[in-house]
Amino acid sequence: MNIRFFGAGFAGLATTALIWASGVSMASEQVYGLVIHGGAGTLTRENLPAETETALRKTLADALHAGHRILAGGGRSLDAVIASVSVLEDSPLFNAGKGAVYTWEETHELDASLMDGRDLAAGAVAAVRNVRSPIELARRVMDDSPHVMLAGVGAELFAQEVGVELVENSWFDTEFRLEQLHIAKQETDPAALLNPLAVENKFGTVGAVALDKDGNLAAATSTGGTTAKRWGRVGDSPLIGAGTYADNNSCAVSATGHGEYFIRHAVAHDICARLAYQKVSLAEAAEYVVMEKLADAGGDGGVIAIDRDGNIAMPFNTEGMYRGHRLGADDPVVRIFKEE
Amino acid sequence: MNIRFFGAGFAGLATTALIWASGVSMASEQVYGLVIHGGAGTLTRENLPAETETALRKTLADALHAGHRILAGGGRSLDAVIASVSVLEDSPLFNAGKGAVYTWEETHELDASLMDGRDLAAGAVAAVRNVRSPIELARRVMDDSPHVMLAGVGAELFAQEVGVELVENSWFDTEFRLEQLHIAKQETDPAALLNPLAVENKFGTVGAVALDKDGNLAAATSTGGTTAKRWGRVGDSPLIGAGTYADNNSCAVSATGHGEYFIRHAVAHDICARLAYQKVSLAEAAEYVVMEKLADAGGDGGVIAIDRDGNIAMPFNTEGMYRGHRLGADDPVVRIFKEE
Repeated sequence: MNIRFFGAGFAGLATTALIWASGVSMASEQVYGLVIHGGAGTLTRENLPAETETALRKTLADALHAGHRILAGGGRSLDAVIASVSVLEDSPLFNAGKGAVYTWEETHELDASLMDGRDLAAGAVAAVRNVRSPIELARRVMDDSPHVMLAGVGAELFAQEVGVELVENSWFDTEFRLEQLHIAKQETDPAALLNPLAVENKFGTVGAVALDKDGNLAAATSTGGTTAKRWGRVGDSPLIGAGTYADNNSCAVSATGHGEYFIRHAVAHDICARLAYQKVSLAEAAEYVVMEKLADAGGDGGVIAIDRDGNIAMPFNTEGMYRGHRLGADDPVVRIFKEE
Repeated sequence: MNIRFFGAGFAGLATTALIWASGVSMASEQVYGLVIHGGAGTLTRENLPAETETALRKTLADALHAGHRILAGGGRSLDAVIASVSVLEDSPLFNAGKGAVYTWEETHELDASLMDGRDLAAGAVAAVRNVRSPIELARRVMDDSPHVMLAGVGAELFAQEVGVELVENSWFDTEFRLEQLHIAKQETDPAALLNPLAVENKFGTVGAVALDKDGNLAAATSTGGTTAKRWGRVGDSPLIGAGTYADNNSCAVSATGHGEYFIRHAVAHDICARLAYQKVSLAEAAEYVVMEKLADAGGDGGVIAIDRDGNIAMPFNTEGMYRGHRLGADDPVVRIFKEE
């Protein structure tokens, strides 16, 4: 096992990937693996209670296991990333599905997207209020409609037609997120109120990227957006190219951070494009975009990425990022803080 | 004037740009220019009545003039692309603003986006129903909100707050588009009905890209989407990176076509990335993406693009694309068919 550290980020290379990259034919040992994230932000040991930390690590491990099991059994990377993201959506601890933050009007509006690197098929939903699993609906948009992206009430009509589980908007309620909204609304500076940076723990988004035994890449991202969001704000998570991208010719990326910057820099596609056109490594491409381009512009957050050789990268320019990975038969790894 | 033709596309290079590119200092003669489009599709001389053709060419010329006048006077490329797009939005002849196609429910849902290559500032709106000029609202999102993208009812609340002109949804009605909807609904094959390709003249979108005398690039795109669209379908036009992208380090792009393919291929950002990372010419980058990648995938449509040296490209893989350009003091050029 060869692990390299890059600044605040991280990049690993499984042994099998090294052999694979060196050109040795190992059809029976195609590397496979999975990386997940549960959001980035002002995460320090001081402001995270021990029992919350334990619960977070347990859920991240469960999410890793759900996706890895599919890959180990020879399943598709697309199914694996959905399985991992579904576990995080169903947990009240992460800002996606159950546990989604509140909008200004005390409702929840959820976004999700996914992409299959095999054929660039993609699905996305924005601002849905009654769909229990937005990532499942994104999958149905990809599979059962001629479209890539559906938004708002129309997306829910589609959900009804294809039989995706619907819930009351209040199903997403949690006491913790309501408190966050009240704190956000107490902010008296109107400029700060409009600024997503004004709210702590703000970059709640979950995501997964995977490489399966057939060499196919996939990426998925799901979120409740930013606390106290207004005006139908759409962040990067449901946008193919910004929060999510996967292409077998380069890599798979899922992002989390101050969405507006991730849209302007087309972060997920840019990392794939640098890999494909500049011929740099995944670590170099992801590190440069997150630690230089985004950081210089003031765009806080991070990404997870995996390429077709099983190299992974998890750079972030915030104090922490909920993250985990499991490559082939290696042990699962779960991390939260920068200095882990 | 040095004009080069590439397949069905086109790429021009103003004399001043050639001198500029050769390194001669010509601060007083910074090249500037503008390219516009009014959509691509099954446009042939046989199916376009003479008086309609005359009116289309006149409106395209007016749109070119509106943007070029700003550039010639030393104004910003961002103001120029908005001025050009506004003229096309206000014309019932193009599928954007007045003249927008009908949704399945006989309403209109409009999308627009724009980007400033100087600082990557961007604004976008999706599925608005009562905003007279979606491109103007996108500008206000960029300037007056901390967000990049707003959608649906929320975007209209924002429009009201910032004082953008609102109209009844019926203001966008035209007899011609209603007929198109009725024809689309007569399609008895449900698969064809869901397929945007089933409707003629389908890729109605308008857009503009510009380079100003200060060397700043900008891009803008506006559309009514596809006839008979359902479920809150969002195409590529309001998506930064798919239908619109501008970066002073590479180029400015506005796309028109079968939006789902343009999203999957992140067309606008991909052309910019190829220019920046592969160091190919604008013509090569745009031609490859439109005539090879998109065409091979079955993605019909085209793009307009301009780079920081004033090179332009207008490739399309359909039978025609409403288009025009004017570089520096050159004569304005307006084209519709492939063989022009």
